[in-house]
Amino acid sequence: MIALADIEAAAAALHGQVRETPVWPLRVPSPGLDHDVLLKCENLQLTGSFKVRGALNFVRQLSEEDGRRGLVAMSAGNHAQGVALAASLRGIPATIVVPASAPLAKINATRALGATVIIHGASLDEARAEAFAIAEREGRVFVPPFDDDAIIAGQGTLGLELVRQAPVVTEVLVPAGGGGLLAGVATAIKAVRPDIRVIGVQAAAMDGIVRSFASHHLVTTGSQRTIADGVAVSGPSGRTFELIERHVDEMVAVGDDAIAQAIVMLIERAKFVVEGAGALGVAAIMSGRYRPRGSALAVISGGNIDINLLGSIVRRGLVEAGRYQHLAVEVSDTPGELALVSAIVAQAGGNILEVDHNRESPGMPVGVAVLELVLEVTGPAQFNEIVVALRAAGLRGVPGSPARLATESARSRHETPGS
Amino acid sequence: MIALADIEAAAAALHGQVRETPVWPLRVPSPGLDHDVLLKCENLQLTGSFKVRGALNFVRQLSEEDGRRGLVAMSAGNHAQGVALAASLRGIPATIVVPASAPLAKINATRALGATVIIHGASLDEARAEAFAIAEREGRVFVPPFDDDAIIAGQGTLGLELVRQAPVVTEVLVPAGGGGLLAGVATAIKAVRPDIRVIGVQAAAMDGIVRSFASHHLVTTGSQRTIADGVAVSGPSGRTFELIERHVDEMVAVGDDAIAQAIVMLIERAKFVVEGAGALGVAAIMSGRYRPRGSALAVISGGNIDINLLGSIVRRGLVEAGRYQHLAVEVSDTPGELALVSAIVAQAGGNILEVDHNRESPGMPVGVAVLELVLEVTGPAQFNEIVVALRAAGLRGVPGSPARLATESARSRHETPGS
Repeated sequence: MIALADIEAAAAALHGQVRETPVWPLRVPSPGLDHDVLLKCENLQLTGSFKVRGALNFVRQLSEEDGRRGLVAMSAGNHAQGVALAASLRGIPATIVVPASAPLAKINATRALGATVIIHGASLDEARAEAFAIAEREGRVFVPPFDDDAIIAGQGTLGLELVRQAPVVTEVLVPAGGGGLLAGVATAIKAVRPDIRVIGVQAAAMDGIVRSFASHHLVTTGSQRTIADGVAVSGPSGRTFELIERHVDEMVAVGDDAIAQAIVMLIERAKFVVEGAGALGVAAIMSGRYRPRGSALAVISGGNIDINLLGSIVRRGLVEAGRYQHLAVEVSDTPGELALVSAIVAQAGGNILEVDHNRESPGMPVGVAVLELVLEVTGPAQFNEIVVALRAAGLRGVPGSPARLATESARSRHETPGS
Repeated sequence: MIALADIEAAAAALHGQVRETPVWPLRVPSPGLDHDVLLKCENLQLTGSFKVRGALNFVRQLSEEDGRRGLVAMSAGNHAQGVALAASLRGIPATIVVPASAPLAKINATRALGATVIIHGASLDEARAEAFAIAEREGRVFVPPFDDDAIIAGQGTLGLELVRQAPVVTEVLVPAGGGGLLAGVATAIKAVRPDIRVIGVQAAAMDGIVRSFASHHLVTTGSQRTIADGVAVSGPSGRTFELIERHVDEMVAVGDDAIAQAIVMLIERAKFVVEGAGALGVAAIMSGRYRPRGSALAVISGGNIDINLLGSIVRRGLVEAGRYQHLAVEVSDTPGELALVSAIVAQAGGNILEVDHNRESPGMPVGVAVLELVLEVTGPAQFNEIVVALRAAGLRGVPGSPARLATESARSRHETPGS
């Protein structure tokens, strides 16, 4: 089991090889109360994530002979770039196996760091099997993503660094998948500042550490989709879990909706690009799943988000925050109706992003059309104002899809005769 | 005309009220050679842009009586937030007139800083007229966006700060619209480090300073759309231009395509969210419009980009970089053809984002359909490989729209009989 001395040795060795990333303040909105939070910006680290710390520490402990054998690793993301950079800095050849689903941008970035990239298999499991096969066949050293003392000690250097940069903090939130970062950072912090609380944060879709922590034995979860792909790991290893049980105070899980909202908030307010895993700590505070007691610091573990995914998440985050709203409005199928609706929406301060004219919704009388609008608004309150204003003008507007409008129409026609 | 003493006085007064934003390294790709550039990150400044510097310096010079009169300003963006924050810090009421086209996020942010926001007029000109009318009617002090000595001196504090943080720089690129930031920063730099070259960068759509600089007299341009809305200004004022002529070494203009590519590159590589104006210096280097001679620093003036616009720009940037490609493929209208095409594209490493089946393109024989694909690829080279692989499989694939395929079909049918 690693101890402070291992992390301090790693920190000394990494000095000058990794960046000291900034700690930056941000007011994080949350239910009831906003919180002034500090962000430890490892999205600004070399390779765009903390992973290079562990990889560099792993590589420095290799013998000359192991170095000549070369490295092999499996990763769809940050570990790939961390290993590639660490290997190139020491002049060691590295082969990285990535599954076919890996984003092109990450593959390109890994190649640009000098590694050989082999695209193999549809899943992480298939890619991992290939990496093991290459290690066997070519005699290469396999670089594990988290289940290794040198890797954990390397990630732990982040804990020493943030405590030194921000001695005022009273609690630190750390993203967790396999638990390498969390184990290392918690070990470091508790060794030098046992008064600081350490909170691990996972994606709810893959919360193996949360479950293990609650039940005091190793639990693994099935593979589920999450936008926090950097922490989509089935569970901790015995090695990481033992450190986590000993040094972590609390585990929290947050859903993808909260993660998406945190990514959007970080873009708008902090001007930082953060990947799903990196946003976990901020998402825990924003969603109210974790309420800071004092001065909280959230570790932003990385910023390598696929740019296509970023586009989808931005849209999803706006929907979740009630800033994108769907509205169906029944209008007579005559000229000028769209102009009327547009004017009312604009008057109430809404912005029309999309319009669809629908004359064929089920249950709609002839001569009636349905406008399907996608609106950008400040939030649910302004959206309600728009619906009220439309009704005041004699138009029937219903939040959501035309189907809901048709259902309401059918009901109101049923009810009218009897009233 | 302002001098170093004015800027130093502003810097002393602003100390502790504005953030010292980081200077951060980035390798910027450019034609022929990559450049190691420093970024001065005013996107991380309070309010998300440098504008708060000038506004605070303006407000601090007001008399008690002027303070009681209150402020009024016109802005669709950063100036609004800068004035709102500066006023609130001194407890002065501020009214900001914004045109109806202003993004909701900026209006919300300005209100959150305590200012009264009045939405008026379709254009900046109409909003400005209303702001003047309010100043007249209510006796408020109008806060100009750039044509004012206190504003220019406030922006100049950025020049002193970056020279102190990064004494190694040999050239500094500064975004310019009305020229307040450029005039202030150039005055500051040339006073303390006359050996550093200062380069102003404008959006090509509105390049009033570039034209003025070339012709040695004030030139204004018409109002044109640009994604760099923060510098969409018709030209410099006499006051800013006099300082620019005296202290600036070179002016450069860059097009919206280059700006969009720079925004995408800054997201992917630097993990920073930067608005169009803020990306100008990086765009100048990336596009080859400016070639650094030594150690260049680009001022990232702000990060307040509308999140809907960000989505569009990301897509546009990927198209410009050749990473989104349109492909039309002629197939027989029978089952299995899409599966064949998909397999070939996947084999060559391309990612299909959108598929459209078209059976009605002009010039297409009966029984033939056109697949319209949107592909994500690593770049033009990989796209060519895909086209070649399709042809090797007996399929006709043409970059671009089905219309182009139809034209080629018609031509080949014309040619065939004569051959």
